[in-house]
This record gives sequence, C-alpha cells and structure tokens, in this order.
Amino acid sequence: MVINNNFYMSLAIKEAWRYQGLTYPNPAVGCTVVRGSGEILAVEAHKRAGEPHAEVAALKSAYFKLTNDKNIIDITTSSEIHFYLLKNHKNCFDKVSLYTTLEPCAHIGKTPSCATLISSLGIKTIFVGSNDTNEEASGGNGILKKSGLHVENNILKEECDNLLKPFKLWTQKSFVFFKWAQRLNGTTDGGIISSQESRINVHAMRDKCDLLVIGGNTVRVDRPTLDARLVNDGKAPDVLIVSRCKEFDMSIPLFSVQNRKVIISDDFSRCRNYKNIMIEGSSKMFELSRNIIDYYLCYLAPTVGGSNSFTEIDDKLEILNIQEEAQDIIMWMKRDV
Amino acid sequence: MVINNNFYMSLAIKEAWRYQGLTYPNPAVGCTVVRGSGEILAVEAHKRAGEPHAEVAALKSAYFKLTNDKNIIDITTSSEIHFYLLKNHKNCFDKVSLYTTLEPCAHIGKTPSCATLISSLGIKTIFVGSNDTNEEASGGNGILKKSGLHVENNILKEECDNLLKPFKLWTQKSFVFFKWAQRLNGTTDGGIISSQESRINVHAMRDKCDLLVIGGNTVRVDRPTLDARLVNDGKAPDVLIVSRCKEFDMSIPLFSVQNRKVIISDDFSRCRNYKNIMIEGSSKMFELSRNIIDYYLCYLAPTVGGSNSFTEIDDKLEILNIQEEAQDIIMWMKRDV
Repeated sequence: MVINNNFYMSLAIKEAWRYQGLTYPNPAVGCTVVRGSGEILAVEAHKRAGEPHAEVAALKSAYFKLTNDKNIIDITTSSEIHFYLLKNHKNCFDKVSLYTTLEPCAHIGKTPSCATLISSLGIKTIFVGSNDTNEEASGGNGILKKSGLHVENNILKEECDNLLKPFKLWTQKSFVFFKWAQRLNGTTDGGIISSQESRINVHAMRDKCDLLVIGGNTVRVDRPTLDARLVNDGKAPDVLIVSRCKEFDMSIPLFSVQNRKVIISDDFSRCRNYKNIMIEGSSKMFELSRNIIDYYLCYLAPTVGGSNSFTEIDDKLEILNIQEEAQDIIMWMKRDV
Repeated sequence: MVINNNFYMSLAIKEAWRYQGLTYPNPAVGCTVVRGSGEILAVEAHKRAGEPHAEVAALKSAYFKLTNDKNIIDITTSSEIHFYLLKNHKNCFDKVSLYTTLEPCAHIGKTPSCATLISSLGIKTIFVGSNDTNEEASGGNGILKKSGLHVENNILKEECDNLLKPFKLWTQKSFVFFKWAQRLNGTTDGGIISSQESRINVHAMRDKCDLLVIGGNTVRVDRPTLDARLVNDGKAPDVLIVSRCKEFDMSIPLFSVQNRKVIISDDFSRCRNYKNIMIEGSSKMFELSRNIIDYYLCYLAPTVGGSNSFTEIDDKLEILNIQEEAQDIIMWMKRDV
C-alpha cells in the first residue's frame, strides 16, 4: 500500500461518500487533516446542510487531538467552531496539511467562509480534489493563495469529481438516481431484503429527495407508504407513479401521506421542476428509466434466496464507492460509457 | 472516522486479504508501521511463501521512508533484509509501533524469526491481532516481551482471526472455499463474466490449491481446462469431478493437463488428503457442497445481463472482506451462523 497524497485524499473521499445524498442541497465533501510528514489527525465529512462543512469538522477534531482542549467538543455550530478555533488555535496548526475533496468555499452562508478560516490558522499546505465552479461559493483557492498558502489542485480529481457530480447536477438542473435493494444472487423479490440500518439510510435519503419515482405495478402489488418515517421529522417526497393506467386503489398508504403531491403519468418529463430525484425500482423500471439515470445506488444484502432479479438489459456499470454498513453493502455506481 | 489502534490494524488486515489464498501454505498476514503519535510509514502484507513476512516487508518500506537509503530497495530476500536492517537501522525505529494481524513468528524457517528482528531494532510497542498457535512458529510474544517491548494483544481480534482461519484449517485438516463469478444481477451464465485481472487472480489461486472440485455437468457443458496458465509457472491442481455418471469425453482439455490427477466420484470424502481445496461452481454445486464449505469467494462484475443465478437455497452470509480490483469486486464471506 502506498502512503501518499492520494492515500490521504482517498480517506476523505471514502468518508464523504457515506453522506452522499444526505447533504442536499449542499455537496458531499470530505477532509483529511495531516500533521508533519504523515500523522493523520482527522478525517471528517460534511453530513447535513446547516451542519459544519467538512473542513470545519475536520479542523475541530484535529484541534482536539492536538491540544486535548475538551471545551471544543460540545461546540457544534459551524460559526461557533470558527470563532473558537480563531481565538484559541495558538499556532497548533503550523505543521498541518489539509486534503479536501472540494476547494474550500469563499461564501459566507449558513457558515462563515472555510477559505478564510483555513487562511487564518497558520496552515501551510492544502491539497484539493475538485474545484468549485458554484458561483456563490467559488473563489476559495484565491483567498488561500493570497494569504500565502501552498495550494495543490487535482489530487484524485476524477474520484473527487464523481463525488461532487450529484451537487453539480442538482444545482444546474436535476440529479436522478436509481435505488434498489437486492440479495447477493440478484433477487429483488420475496420479502424484506435489507437490514434495518440500510432501511433507515434509505428513509434518510428520501427525506432529502423532492421526488420519488415508482412504477404503477409496484404500487399496486406492494401497497407502499414511501415516506421517511424511520428518521426524525422525516419529510416524505412527492411521488410520480409511472403508469399508463391512471386508476389506483386510493387506500394504498402512499396516497394518504400529509403534504405530498402524487402525480400519475407515463411521462418521465413530469420529473421536471424537481431537483433531487430517487427512482425506486423493479427490473422494468431499471430498463424504462435507463436514459435519465445519473447514478445507481444498490443496497446489497449478503443473502441467497428469492427468485426474480434484473435481467432485461445488458449494461455495464462502474463502481464509484462501496461501503460496508452493518450487514449490507451500499454501492454507488454510474453507467460505464 | 476514528483514527486509533483499530484504524491502523484495519489497514493491515485490508492489505493482507488481497493475498488470501496466495500465501499458502503460509498464513495471510498484514503489518502497519506507525511513527510517533500516528504517522503511517508502511502497510504491507505477506505475499507468497518464501517471500518476506509482512513485518519484514513493512519494516523495509518504513526504513526507506525514514532514511531515504536507496540501497534497501533492491534487497528482496527476507534474510538479506533482516541482515541489512540489523546492520543499518541506527535506531531509526525508536519511535515506531507495529500493528501485526498475527503474532510475529519465533520460527527460523525460510526466513529468520520476525520476533527476534523486531526485538533488535529498538521498537517499543507492538499491537497484535491474533495469537499464533502454530507449534513451529509460536512463541513470538515471549521473545518480544523478554526484550522489553510492550505487547498489546487482541486488537481487532475477531477480524484478524477471520483472516487467519484458512491457515488454521489447512494446517489442522483442510480449508475448503467455494469460488464463483457473477454479475451484479446474480447471473453466472452467458459467457465471460469477470475482468482479465480477476481471471488472472483466479489462476493464481488455483496455482496454490492442491484440489479443484467441479460438477460433472459443468465439465460436460463448459469443457474447461482448469489450469493456472494465466500465471507464470502456474501449477494445475488435481481435479475432483463430482458426478454420478463416470463417463466423460476424454478430449475435454482438463483431462490432458500434465501432472494432474483427475478423480471422478459422487463422494466429497474424496477431498480427504488434500489441504487447500477450491470448489468452482454452479447453483447446484453451491447447494451440494454447503456443509463442507469454510469460506466463500465471489468475483462480482458490475454488469447486468445473463439469465441464471443461484436460487436454490436460503442462506445468509457474512462479509469478511471486500476488495475493489480493476473493474470487479472480490468478496470473501462465510456462512453467518
């Protein structure tokens, strides 16, 4: 195993993927803090909009490791962490390098600018994966360079760009991902497949989606609720039922969820006006939606059973990230073109 | 992400799994070398019998990182690395900790004892996963403690024991693993599934096996060679064809491989006398061999196609390791009981 800049960046990438989709409308970002010639002080990710950016979370952890100052542990809001670090750092970061999957923001929004914070802490070097082309937040590298930091760009750029892609898509137009659960032998039928942890993760993703797309037949057979009840204050997304036949038994639970719009249509263009779209699906939906999918998200349970699996198309996917979570595997993929 | 002893050990475990099966008759072992409060100097694994043990490989890499002494790079035999480190270390390891998945050996075999080497280099602390119960090699901890090292045992013990299990089994009796290739949707038919890299990996595994078990129907339909031609000097294992009907077309290539014994029997007890046994299989073989399997090895290609998959049994597996290799995923699993 080679321990180099790519290794440190890969830790940041890996951590960030765990929160892909959950940071909406913010990007998934990870950050590794390294001291001297290679001591890893912290690896953190941005977890949810409104919570600290990855750099702030990582600097907080690194500060505690460097100083053992327990006061910082209970400080959770981003602006308070900024303020506390600026006041108390006492040059403890002087031999520190940062690895961030995305150029630090220059934007003062829900949190103060990360680029300004990093510039003020005596950090010498920052390694960046993707550059920020978001109008509001870009300009971070400029701030960093102006204050004398050494900035090195394009570290594992392709991997960081893959991590950032959903954000780029939903800020421009929309991000569409196809999510399914299956067993090791590919089956998607025959009762509950995923672990409880995976199902909670799916509900957390739904909570951040504004539209959920599902096939009419699945609705008729499974009679689902399609809400986000497994997470606190989970918000149920609108639903597009893709179906030629417009008649449904209105006692199917998904129709009774509060503050939800249900669209029944055979036209995927009804996804327009939505930003973060999850398609939950069967083999048929996998085929039908093929041309509008940006990413695939598979929850794979290491079990063997069931009888029906995806069989209708020949397709080659590229694995973007694999994560072992409780008993399942969570895989993000895109079509390999 | 928590950066602690478990993190450093997990890097060693991950690296070691890449060579699981390939180290036969030696165990798969990994080692991480860390300086001071957490600078990772090296993560290495034992790769093949006769080549340096994980600790020696890791100390070699760490020595180069610490001293920049290029002379060590071309030294590849274990005894020469031992000798060179002993002569030239000049206390460069004095702030170094080791993390080894297995207690360092006390045995002077193809390589000198790792425990003696580690004791002589001024290393202060060693973290150990599994303890060595192999009669020939055990006693390493004793040597280390006697020379004043701080030894901490049972770091990620369960994970390290899972890594070591095949070795324990083939030294006691035999290790049997079921290997198959499938697509994401579970299919195992319809032409070549795995990438060329995965196929080379399978041939490298075959080269280390003494017996390969396969179903009679697969032999009749696929007409395989079942050798290890994709690796240099690859040795083809003996073959047990599990079949009630004993008649086969002897022009099927597997029968013409030099220095190979082919057994045709419907009795798995013919595996007796073999140590490292790979079952290559279909859905039927997966079911038939269920009770003699120790581990499962799945090569999963992120493609969708084919039509037949494993469907005949309800089984729950536990994932021991996932490795992304070229375009495929390589998963080691065991039955979850």
